[in-house]
Amino acid sequence: MKRQDRSDVTWHYHRIERSDRERMLGHKGATVWLTGLSGSGKSTIADTASCMLHDSGVLTAVLDGDNIRHGLNRDLGFSPEDRQENIRRIGEVARLLTGIGIVNFVAFISPYRKDRDLARSIQEQDDFIEVYVDAPLEVAEQRDPKGLYAKARAGEIPSFTGISAPYEEPLAPEIHLHTEKQDPEECARQIIEALRERGIVR
Amino acid sequence: MKRQDRSDVTWHYHRIERSDRERMLGHKGATVWLTGLSGSGKSTIADTASCMLHDSGVLTAVLDGDNIRHGLNRDLGFSPEDRQENIRRIGEVARLLTGIGIVNFVAFISPYRKDRDLARSIQEQDDFIEVYVDAPLEVAEQRDPKGLYAKARAGEIPSFTGISAPYEEPLAPEIHLHTEKQDPEECARQIIEALRERGIVR
Repeated sequence: MKRQDRSDVTWHYHRIERSDRERMLGHKGATVWLTGLSGSGKSTIADTASCMLHDSGVLTAVLDGDNIRHGLNRDLGFSPEDRQENIRRIGEVARLLTGIGIVNFVAFISPYRKDRDLARSIQEQDDFIEVYVDAPLEVAEQRDPKGLYAKARAGEIPSFTGISAPYEEPLAPEIHLHTEKQDPEECARQIIEALRERGIVR
Repeated sequence: MKRQDRSDVTWHYHRIERSDRERMLGHKGATVWLTGLSGSGKSTIADTASCMLHDSGVLTAVLDGDNIRHGLNRDLGFSPEDRQENIRRIGEVARLLTGIGIVNFVAFISPYRKDRDLARSIQEQDDFIEVYVDAPLEVAEQRDPKGLYAKARAGEIPSFTGISAPYEEPLAPEIHLHTEKQDPEECARQIIEALRERGIVR
């Protein structure tokens, strides 16, 4: 017990808080939640904005299928329950990253309002920026960067958003992008401007 | 298609890589995985080391019951399968944090070798530092900061590590701390020294 007493006396370390980290980084944490059809441009816009911010000294992260579906959520399939759990966990990781002071981009179709609203509800109001990456289905399908629409049309992918499963548009997103008219750089600038207006980055 | 062509031409942003972030932060990412009995000192040591590193400009994070069990893993109970899934997900989040360049501390009992080995296996060898926070059961039980041992002895907590469930000691941890003899500050310094030796922090 002597040691314990001694360590109680000499103890002067506190738990590092979010504000401590944000002070060190020189910016605040926030989640930029991009939602939209496959092929709408979510990942490209997330990477572009992340890159621009990084170049101005902001610590960023991008959560997308590449690093989540093959890692944290490798146990999940595509049933309705699994899709919901997929988005729930992503929302929790986004919250963790925000708490570390990171500007984190989430780039998943996330087609259901209630799932996006859950992800929003676990963060502070100012920390969550929903971005509707809007492209007409025809445009997204024509781009079809991964050949998924072709497979979905051929019936090889069941419940494909926009073809055989619904996409619920955000009712009041903080940002509404139109990627059939705006290029990725313009979209990224609009997001960064919104982060500046909110005092998240300089 | 015109827009797409244009954006292909003007495109000059790449995906930000781990090395880009580490260059910006001025240190590398790594996972410090603390394992040991309840009351052995894992969280206190993690907080102390995190605080010391933060004071020298290192971006740190601590994953523990407070931010994981009530968030990402709120759907998990204490069955053998759920305990395993708990540690699996924590390992995946630790890997994500390492990839962002963060020195992340994981402070969970994590009593099973195979679960810790899984967490280790998904990271690069140099990125994972297993720390055995060793305290004799009598010492941990005497501390009993959360009153859990008392409850376990009273039969109120089934499968409590050290009482009614096994703890599998690490066979070859990178660091072996003896918290009945070393205070938290000394333990934290030993961890930080190991991080310096590995070139993770300066």
